[in-house]
Amino acid sequence: MEKFSCYFKILIFIILITSCFLIANSKTLKPKKPCKQLVLYYHDILFNVTITNSANATSANVSNPPNVLGDYNFGMLVVFDDPITEDQNLVSTPVARAQGFYLYNMKSKYNAWFAYTLVFNSSEYCGTLNIMGADIIDQKTRDLSIVGGTGDFFMARGVVTFSTDAVEGLGYFRLKMDIKLYECY
Amino acid sequence: MEKFSCYFKILIFIILITSCFLIANSKTLKPKKPCKQLVLYYHDILFNVTITNSANATSANVSNPPNVLGDYNFGMLVVFDDPITEDQNLVSTPVARAQGFYLYNMKSKYNAWFAYTLVFNSSEYCGTLNIMGADIIDQKTRDLSIVGGTGDFFMARGVVTFSTDAVEGLGYFRLKMDIKLYECY
Amino acid sequence: MEKFSCYFKILIFIILITSCFLIANSKTLKPKKPCKQLVLYYHDILFNVTITNSANATSANVSNPPNVLGDYNFGMLVVFDDPITEDQNLVSTPVARAQGFYLYNMKSKYNAWFAYTLVFNSSEYCGTLNIMGADIIDQKTRDLSIVGGTGDFFMARGVVTFSTDAVEGLGYFRLKMDIKLYECY
Repeated sequence: MEKFSCYFKILIFIILITSCFLIANSKTLKPKKPCKQLVLYYHDILFNVTITNSANATSANVSNPPNVLGDYNFGMLVVFDDPITEDQNLVSTPVARAQGFYLYNMKSKYNAWFAYTLVFNSSEYCGTLNIMGADIIDQKTRDLSIVGGTGDFFMARGVVTFSTDAVEGLGYFRLKMDIKLYECY
Repeated sequence: MEKFSCYFKILIFIILITSCFLIANSKTLKPKKPCKQLVLYYHDILFNVTITNSANATSANVSNPPNVLGDYNFGMLVVFDDPITEDQNLVSTPVARAQGFYLYNMKSKYNAWFAYTLVFNSSEYCGTLNIMGADIIDQKTRDLSIVGGTGDFFMARGVVTFSTDAVEGLGYFRLKMDIKLYECY
Repeated sequence: MEKFSCYFKILIFIILITSCFLIANSKTLKPKKPCKQLVLYYHDILFNVTITNSANATSANVSNPPNVLGDYNFGMLVVFDDPITEDQNLVSTPVARAQGFYLYNMKSKYNAWFAYTLVFNSSEYCGTLNIMGADIIDQKTRDLSIVGGTGDFFMARGVVTFSTDAVEGLGYFRLKMDIKLYECY
């Protein structure tokens, strides 16, 4: 009887170990909540070629887009080094820079695509987050992918939710970026 | 004897648990098959500046490439908002849009590089997949990386295999995209 | 007494299994060392429009950057197909090509952003690694993200550490790329 009990325990044990192996390799479970979350604001001041705002500008169109593909800047590609703040105020001390580019890619409405790096260099964080995805401007919120990280964000992955926080013509816009990491090392 | 048997079991147990830990943290096993697979077709109609096809065009060259670096459009950068269909027919109802860009980057042959987002908005899927990688055109099939996803494809990773399905000069080409996700949440 | 010992063992067992499950799903542990490491050198020979070096050039500026945003090539976007060697010698047989682009994005100093694919086609490796991130040139070393891989690098993730190895004006520069994969399949 004692022997039977031991065999039984070993059987249960093997079943549990196997299921553990399977879970370790499939990552099928949806994480309930982020392992880290940050809300940050992105400020873009586009260089205006005719009125010189080069001292304040943080981004510039570097493309040669055709003007005849609709009225929504199709093909315009903007390189940026934009300040990232913890509140909505443009002149707050930046906690990071956003470096990369966006482009407009629709004929029928404003729609953009982003690829950039958040470069943190503050007392709180040192490191980078790399982000790419579609900025479907006419949706109230839209999700882009955080595809990697370095430093304090070593190997991170997650989702960043954009929402438009302010638009002042083509010259300035502000995005709220709700950063949620679901893989933290 | 009974005591020895118990110690032995505990030893085996610790070895198995340790190996389980190691596997959980190293992800060394190759997944046998995708957790999700989709075959889709990508249609690109390049804007032809001289003959106005702006009503049909879904992409445009926005760069200033030098003409003297070979004969294969080195440096040409094309922004696109291309329809994605489930069959090869250009006029089928799109199940997604592909938004992003490709560029040509070889002096000696046609060779491209893609970074884009598949934006799904159909009855079946809502969400995005973010993709980047080399499109080595002279290979029958070539693999790019799916580096992230949102919505129904939350946190997905995988590989997309391109194969050229049709080419009509510079004006139109169609790619078959075999999407295989190996990490699904 | 024997029975108590068995219950105790089962309890320990359940605790360990549970912790194993948790670790498998949260990936909170920092891997001690890469599962694969490679040191490679990247050579970039920029096309010089005025003096024709088109035979040797491996990259070209394809943008229309504004000249008035500082003195550090803000907005310049360079498409490349650059040789990758195992030693510092430009004329060594390449083990891979780096295909993609970089752009300059600062008004006050040289600072760049990269997105590219390492295309391996040697006796040792066949496959690709996809990389993006900020190249903060004034730091001795800077980390970019390896966001995906294919072929021999199927589904890989990691970090690549750049360090400037040589600069000869705008015409040539060499980067040391220390590639560390932390997720290997």
